[in-house]
Amino acid sequence: MSPELIYNEWLIIEEGFFPEKNRASESIFSIGNGKIGQRANFEEQYSGDSLQGSYVAGIYYPDKTRVGWWKNGYPEYFAKVLNAANWIGINIEIDGEELDLAKWKVINFRRVLNMKEGFLKRTFTVESRNRQIEVETIRFLSIVDTEIGVIRLKVKALNFSGNIRFTPYIDLDVKNEDSNYNEKFWDEISSNIDSGEGHIIGKTKKSNFYVSTGMKLVFEKNHIIIQPEIEKITKQKFIANTTSIPVKQNDELVIYKYAVNITSEDHSVSDLASVTMKSLEKAVSKGFFEMLTQQKNAWIKKWEESDIVIKGDVAAQQGIRFNIFQLNQTYTGEDESLNIGPKGFTGEKYGGSTYWDTEAYALPFYLSTAKSEVARNLLMYRYKHLEKAIENAEKLGFNKGAALYPMVTMNGEECHNEWEITFEEIHRNGAIAFAIYNYTRHTGDNEYLNNFGIDVLIALSRFWSQRVNFSPEKGKYVILGVTGPNEYENNVNNNWYTNTIAAWTLEYTIQSLDQLEKEYPKKFKSKVQKLNFKIVEETELWKKIIQHMHYPYHKEEKVFLQQDGYLDKEQLLASDIDPNERPINQYWSWDRILRSPFIKQADVLQGIYMLEDRYDQNCIKRNFNYYESRTVHESSLSACVHSVLASKTGDIDRAYDFYLRTARLDLDDYNKEVEEGLHITSMAGTWMSVVEGFGGMRVRNDLLSFAPLIPQKWTSYSFNVRFRENILSLYVNGIDISLSNISGESTDVIIYNKKYHLEKGIKIRIERIQ
Amino acid sequence: MSPELIYNEWLIIEEGFFPEKNRASESIFSIGNGKIGQRANFEEQYSGDSLQGSYVAGIYYPDKTRVGWWKNGYPEYFAKVLNAANWIGINIEIDGEELDLAKWKVINFRRVLNMKEGFLKRTFTVESRNRQIEVETIRFLSIVDTEIGVIRLKVKALNFSGNIRFTPYIDLDVKNEDSNYNEKFWDEISSNIDSGEGHIIGKTKKSNFYVSTGMKLVFEKNHIIIQPEIEKITKQKFIANTTSIPVKQNDELVIYKYAVNITSEDHSVSDLASVTMKSLEKAVSKGFFEMLTQQKNAWIKKWEESDIVIKGDVAAQQGIRFNIFQLNQTYTGEDESLNIGPKGFTGEKYGGSTYWDTEAYALPFYLSTAKSEVARNLLMYRYKHLEKAIENAEKLGFNKGAALYPMVTMNGEECHNEWEITFEEIHRNGAIAFAIYNYTRHTGDNEYLNNFGIDVLIALSRFWSQRVNFSPEKGKYVILGVTGPNEYENNVNNNWYTNTIAAWTLEYTIQSLDQLEKEYPKKFKSKVQKLNFKIVEETELWKKIIQHMHYPYHKEEKVFLQQDGYLDKEQLLASDIDPNERPINQYWSWDRILRSPFIKQADVLQGIYMLEDRYDQNCIKRNFNYYESRTVHESSLSACVHSVLASKTGDIDRAYDFYLRTARLDLDDYNKEVEEGLHITSMAGTWMSVVEGFGGMRVRNDLLSFAPLIPQKWTSYSFNVRFRENILSLYVNGIDISLSNISGESTDVIIYNKKYHLEKGIKIRIERIQ
Repeated sequence: MSPELIYNEWLIIEEGFFPEKNRASESIFSIGNGKIGQRANFEEQYSGDSLQGSYVAGIYYPDKTRVGWWKNGYPEYFAKVLNAANWIGINIEIDGEELDLAKWKVINFRRVLNMKEGFLKRTFTVESRNRQIEVETIRFLSIVDTEIGVIRLKVKALNFSGNIRFTPYIDLDVKNEDSNYNEKFWDEISSNIDSGEGHIIGKTKKSNFYVSTGMKLVFEKNHIIIQPEIEKITKQKFIANTTSIPVKQNDELVIYKYAVNITSEDHSVSDLASVTMKSLEKAVSKGFFEMLTQQKNAWIKKWEESDIVIKGDVAAQQGIRFNIFQLNQTYTGEDESLNIGPKGFTGEKYGGSTYWDTEAYALPFYLSTAKSEVARNLLMYRYKHLEKAIENAEKLGFNKGAALYPMVTMNGEECHNEWEITFEEIHRNGAIAFAIYNYTRHTGDNEYLNNFGIDVLIALSRFWSQRVNFSPEKGKYVILGVTGPNEYENNVNNNWYTNTIAAWTLEYTIQSLDQLEKEYPKKFKSKVQKLNFKIVEETELWKKIIQHMHYPYHKEEKVFLQQDGYLDKEQLLASDIDPNERPINQYWSWDRILRSPFIKQADVLQGIYMLEDRYDQNCIKRNFNYYESRTVHESSLSACVHSVLASKTGDIDRAYDFYLRTARLDLDDYNKEVEEGLHITSMAGTWMSVVEGFGGMRVRNDLLSFAPLIPQKWTSYSFNVRFRENILSLYVNGIDISLSNISGESTDVIIYNKKYHLEKGIKIRIERIQ
Repeated sequence: MSPELIYNEWLIIEEGFFPEKNRASESIFSIGNGKIGQRANFEEQYSGDSLQGSYVAGIYYPDKTRVGWWKNGYPEYFAKVLNAANWIGINIEIDGEELDLAKWKVINFRRVLNMKEGFLKRTFTVESRNRQIEVETIRFLSIVDTEIGVIRLKVKALNFSGNIRFTPYIDLDVKNEDSNYNEKFWDEISSNIDSGEGHIIGKTKKSNFYVSTGMKLVFEKNHIIIQPEIEKITKQKFIANTTSIPVKQNDELVIYKYAVNITSEDHSVSDLASVTMKSLEKAVSKGFFEMLTQQKNAWIKKWEESDIVIKGDVAAQQGIRFNIFQLNQTYTGEDESLNIGPKGFTGEKYGGSTYWDTEAYALPFYLSTAKSEVARNLLMYRYKHLEKAIENAEKLGFNKGAALYPMVTMNGEECHNEWEITFEEIHRNGAIAFAIYNYTRHTGDNEYLNNFGIDVLIALSRFWSQRVNFSPEKGKYVILGVTGPNEYENNVNNNWYTNTIAAWTLEYTIQSLDQLEKEYPKKFKSKVQKLNFKIVEETELWKKIIQHMHYPYHKEEKVFLQQDGYLDKEQLLASDIDPNERPINQYWSWDRILRSPFIKQADVLQGIYMLEDRYDQNCIKRNFNYYESRTVHESSLSACVHSVLASKTGDIDRAYDFYLRTARLDLDDYNKEVEEGLHITSMAGTWMSVVEGFGGMRVRNDLLSFAPLIPQKWTSYSFNVRFRENILSLYVNGIDISLSNISGESTDVIIYNKKYHLEKGIKIRIERIQ
């Protein structure tokens, strides 16, 4: 726990001002509404260390790539979510002196992220030249009116009379710290500034997105609206108002800054200015307090669907809620052109782009806690990129409709340029296939599969069938030169996870095709035609590959072997590593990591987690014990799978240990990197640890496995799950249970023939029996 | 053959002006003297495409590295030989119009590199505004006075009377095209300009080398020295003289520009200015023609030692002489702080840094064609870098005096940052050990080995003994995660070549230590102490490794297997590749190349070439046939080894085919990249193909194998070899021969007991028997 953060069930509270931690706090206290994201930068001028970050979803820039040694096939650009216009800025002068927390004496300081109601509040008292002021700011990004952000900033003159100047502004002259060539990404198209309102329209270079950022201002003095005299300021990429207001001791001034970000993704370019003005008027006429009330109500509704309530452990409660809150701030599932970057909207790292994290870690959360359209839009995102994935595979020498989805993408094109990842971490294709399967079995709805998923599956299967080759030496199909989810091995042969998910994809595609042919013969025929699918030829090959795929195996230990040759390594355990050399990625050179037996995240366990029905309890235990002892968990995506599997083997204490590593990863800044942004996708893994792990709520084909465990420290916990299909049976610790075991105040569970049709999601409550 | 180049035994001739080929010609017509290198840029202003290149040996700059994705252990800098002050510049105006071959009408143009005598000549006739001039320039870098370069530029007014202006200058405001961040690397320290002479002293940023570049001018009109009125020009990093001389039709003006590059590597900084002036005076008083005569004589002497005379094949003759000429221009062996960059002084690529090419390819050439000090200095270069190689290994987690030499270096520090190469292409350590062995057996002189080499060998052996690990699975020592000389495989396990050269190094080190202990017990003892060598403990481990090293083997084909798992690949031959997709490195993505069975250069054959005595003729044939059919020769270092081994198996036609691929690689620009510079180190491979291949002149331990073959097209060829130790027997086609078979006009071969002591080098002539 960072010393300055205070445990609380619903709030994140920072008490005291710690300039050296400011970047970290800016990440943690980020706000977002799926459309706009804003780091917890200060409204007023701050000359201390800060990473300015205002992000508008879907607005990116193709930054020219930087590479040491070019390899054929590398992309030219890395699409990055841009730091967009600063809409929060309100500079403040007290009798001509600029308020700046880096320079003033800070008497008290408190930052609160209200997760229950969705707003950020900051209060502080500062002094300079014997003038003390008290400041309170509240800001939020509305999840009701998603183009709008609002700030209420109050200044109270505590011990003096004088003049307070406000200079609210919009600044488009911003850059990304991670720009490869120090370029600025925005051009100004036009700007307008009046008294009390104004906007700038910017256009991104190359990608040609237009964004209009506007503001409208309201001033109050001692609770009465005032209309002070305002000067207008306009510079290149910058507009502002400035006004000086006289105050006496104990006077309170308030400025309301209503701001909008209106983009060419949602509006025609020619309408941007007028939409900006209309939206601002709407915001002002609703007013701050009404908007805040709507915000609270909307968040309360979100929490009804996605909350996990933990009793007996405030830190755990705060941690899990923080994760759920940030996930809901990042992605709302309303726009199928958007996705989830590993850092969400909380920093520049990873460029806000989409990774396999979405399918492998984030999807289960949204599937279980939101209406199915949310998860479906994540699948549609990939469907819409299918053509580009086929082009991407063509660049790498594949053909006939084979698709390789990019490792990192914004618009479907590959962004990444590290050969062992870009070209070789092809297991991402498997996660995309699995996501279709996961969605379909969760919702019981084949509509996506039959209309869109099948196209994706065929393209993926075509890729795998071309990517394998037959090894005459082994008499088996092999997959050479890959990097698995364990990125501490590069360019290996026959990564067990990759081979497994590849063959599984072929199986699932065949099965889906069979089912489509049976149920919708006409649709099947038209798909076959459209995709130029050679039914017999292609599926025969796929079946041969499924039958003869090579799976490395450790005969003595009876575990799946991570890859060919793994047993040639020095057989050490993670516990053999000198603790002074952990994490090894900070102390060891890359080659040493590569040839060590140590695992960043255990991909064999990832495979077992995904295809759990295939493996019995003993098999899971053996593999878990073998790989856990070799895993150093230097990926934020590692611990959650270990937690779920530890739960699976009934080891709640170990499961809880792993859970702890992820639940407060950012709040407690374990990896000393939260200043770069939050680990958004790994937050979904934390949710998995509780619901799928302790709670045991995992769909296993047609079977909902339900074997809840309660961590020692907890007295009870409850959460929502959502399955829309007939669930054959519901088990607790292997025993079929009746509905009465489920605390179902929000359920409309329909029982027929021992099947539970869980229509809208039910609330599961688990209590410790004393 | 480029259409514009003309076959000639001693000259490289370009007839006609081809602006689109200018960069290529600038490389081919480069001149150098081991100390200074100069691309064949024009003296006069040229607005067309050109890569300006003036290089001063040993003067480098640590350019901040550019990398896409940082890996622990990467160096921060890449040391690059700098583009230094332009000392050749002489701008010319005809009646106020700047002479520029990109703008004037070119009536004729001829560029000649005189390899026999060591100078570059260019003649051309051009016209503009009805004024025709004829220009002739001769320039050379003296191999007698190695700090001096001289230019004689003649302009003849063919059809007009008017004014001709010369503006000779020195320009330090230069940059490297391959600068990572577009920086300029030079600061000006001081400059001086007088009438007819001047200099600039520059200092490199960061590396703080000082170089004074000076010029002194002499003018002639119609063969009479004149002293025209001269204006002085001085700007930031630039000095010039300018003078306008009236001419009548058929008048000839000549400007002699004597230039020097004086460096802080050879002189104290405070002396640079005075040394510059003295050197220039010396040059002028010698005069152009005397210096040219000395140049010719010195080159003729060089040729006596290193020439290969081929009768019956002008293209082959020109090719081999071009290679020998460029090798001798690049490295003279007089300075142990210098080495041989893959491009020599002919371009910026590879930064002029040292690679394993030096030991593996260049050393045999210098061993056989120059006094032994030349080769010895190449070994001293590495000895002097031993401490840094130990530091380099420490960075990668090794200890106790283990050394890993850098993949790419200037001053002993690693420059390269590509993990699969920097960290994994560790076979370079083997080539350095082998070079010590090769030098010692060639010269029969143990002095280097005993005084310096033994330190290097122990450090290398310590590295190998730590880099292996014992595989319980195989019951063998293995070397995991390496890249062999075949760079179309990355991060493989048990590369046969690497394992072989590693175990061989251990053997050779033990043997050298034994010999030292026997012959110089006192020296042995002091080395043991100095190096903290645990005799029993360390050598016992080494012996265990030698005994139990794992060598991949192909049982069916009875060939050494390139690496573990190679047989899992699709078993295709190079002949199966679509010719439209060759070279594959231009058409295939990197992952596709990696998982293909195709070989850039066959490292098993490299090992067989180096350790030939270990393998019988059948073994060599089997391996040659197996790997040759899988090799795509996309390294310029590949064909020479194949040529030598084809000769070894008696297949002269195939050997000749491979020879052709290397001999005129640059002249005929096979790879369309000669504009980047010449393939200097691969040129030594061409020499190997003839002398060691066709000529069969290879030292095999104590046996000089001598089995000459004559390519079909050749009537005879002859070359020099140099061995200073007792040669037990001399064979022709396996039959012991007497001295009379050797054309030995320059020999003082001493015969005792069928042993030939070849003291100073003998000339071998091989003739076709009609």
